[in-house]
Amino acid sequence: MTADVALPTPRRRPTKAKAAPVEATARTPLTPETWIDAATDVLVSHGIDSVRVDVLAKRLQVTRGSFYWHFKDRNDLLAQVLQTWRRKSTEELTRRLETAHTDPAEQVRDVLSLPFRGRSAVRAAQIELALRDWARRDPVARQVMDESDASRLAYISQIFSSLGFGVLEARSRAFLLYSHVVAASQMTGAEAALPREERNRFVEQLIQTPLR
Amino acid sequence: MTADVALPTPRRRPTKAKAAPVEATARTPLTPETWIDAATDVLVSHGIDSVRVDVLAKRLQVTRGSFYWHFKDRNDLLAQVLQTWRRKSTEELTRRLETAHTDPAEQVRDVLSLPFRGRSAVRAAQIELALRDWARRDPVARQVMDESDASRLAYISQIFSSLGFGVLEARSRAFLLYSHVVAASQMTGAEAALPREERNRFVEQLIQTPLR
Repeated sequence: MTADVALPTPRRRPTKAKAAPVEATARTPLTPETWIDAATDVLVSHGIDSVRVDVLAKRLQVTRGSFYWHFKDRNDLLAQVLQTWRRKSTEELTRRLETAHTDPAEQVRDVLSLPFRGRSAVRAAQIELALRDWARRDPVARQVMDESDASRLAYISQIFSSLGFGVLEARSRAFLLYSHVVAASQMTGAEAALPREERNRFVEQLIQTPLR
Repeated sequence: MTADVALPTPRRRPTKAKAAPVEATARTPLTPETWIDAATDVLVSHGIDSVRVDVLAKRLQVTRGSFYWHFKDRNDLLAQVLQTWRRKSTEELTRRLETAHTDPAEQVRDVLSLPFRGRSAVRAAQIELALRDWARRDPVARQVMDESDASRLAYISQIFSSLGFGVLEARSRAFLLYSHVVAASQMTGAEAALPREERNRFVEQLIQTPLR
């Protein structure tokens, strides 16, 4: 969480915040992605209240002015943090899963394994939990999280429809499977009583078992 | 989230932070619970970084000095925030559920309904999500959350043991049911595609269905 963002420019002392924006940006060719990554890092390590232009400029060792070359204001940056996360985590994910397997039972197994795919899964879970916490108190973040949950749920529902379940039951099964993914990524300390392989094998079976 | 904590003393301007602790506390008979409640409010509305003695003293309109009448330091307060949450949310909860029903199928229904019990459930979910976010970066919070999850899971596992499932399967079923409770309390925006009553009825049935 304390890892610094890689800078394309050599380290230098920040100049005065009052420096003219155009002049400042001419000296600091940071991309919007650098600001978005830094904002995401600060969100994860300190919470949304700390994601401020002055904090980020200090972290990136550039002037505040250079920020306004890329973003209208803080809200513009926050909106782009949300859109970037949504694009990376949701759209790319569902696209990958859809092209990797055609067998729906394999797709169920794939969904179940999501929280356990190494370091990138841990990082993704940290970002997502920070976003959920932020979404509790911010309607814009709330909407992006809700839309993201809805599109993931719609994707998982399709898997259960392919397995032959009716529409409502497919949605219920999708919600339960997705709940397991969300909770497992948050409750990494609950491993002791039950190895995750055991848990996943059980869920994989039960979630495809017809009701009596 | 902006509701002020009720104060037992009349409003007055804060005195200097340097005032002698004993003199300050003599004028401000706040209880430790008042500080703990205020700290929890700030945690929920601004995140753990904002839970600082100066912020809380200003909010409660007392001197910083009076804080040290009740707590050794900020870490002592944070430890008590965690212990208070754990006691209220976990121990009292399991005690209530255990005495309310003896029929394990009723207990399953009771667990499923937890995220939907009005305003207090919404508030509890907000606090819990803020604590989970904090626990990602703090080992003390992490330990309390892990222990709390473990004791809830142990309780729910007992229900499935009563229903006749073996130890490992009871634990897997408990984890899946608890996942649904945790995720449902976080994903309140996912209602549109599937009413929660429908979802709960389905989970209640499936979670008690034997594997084929």
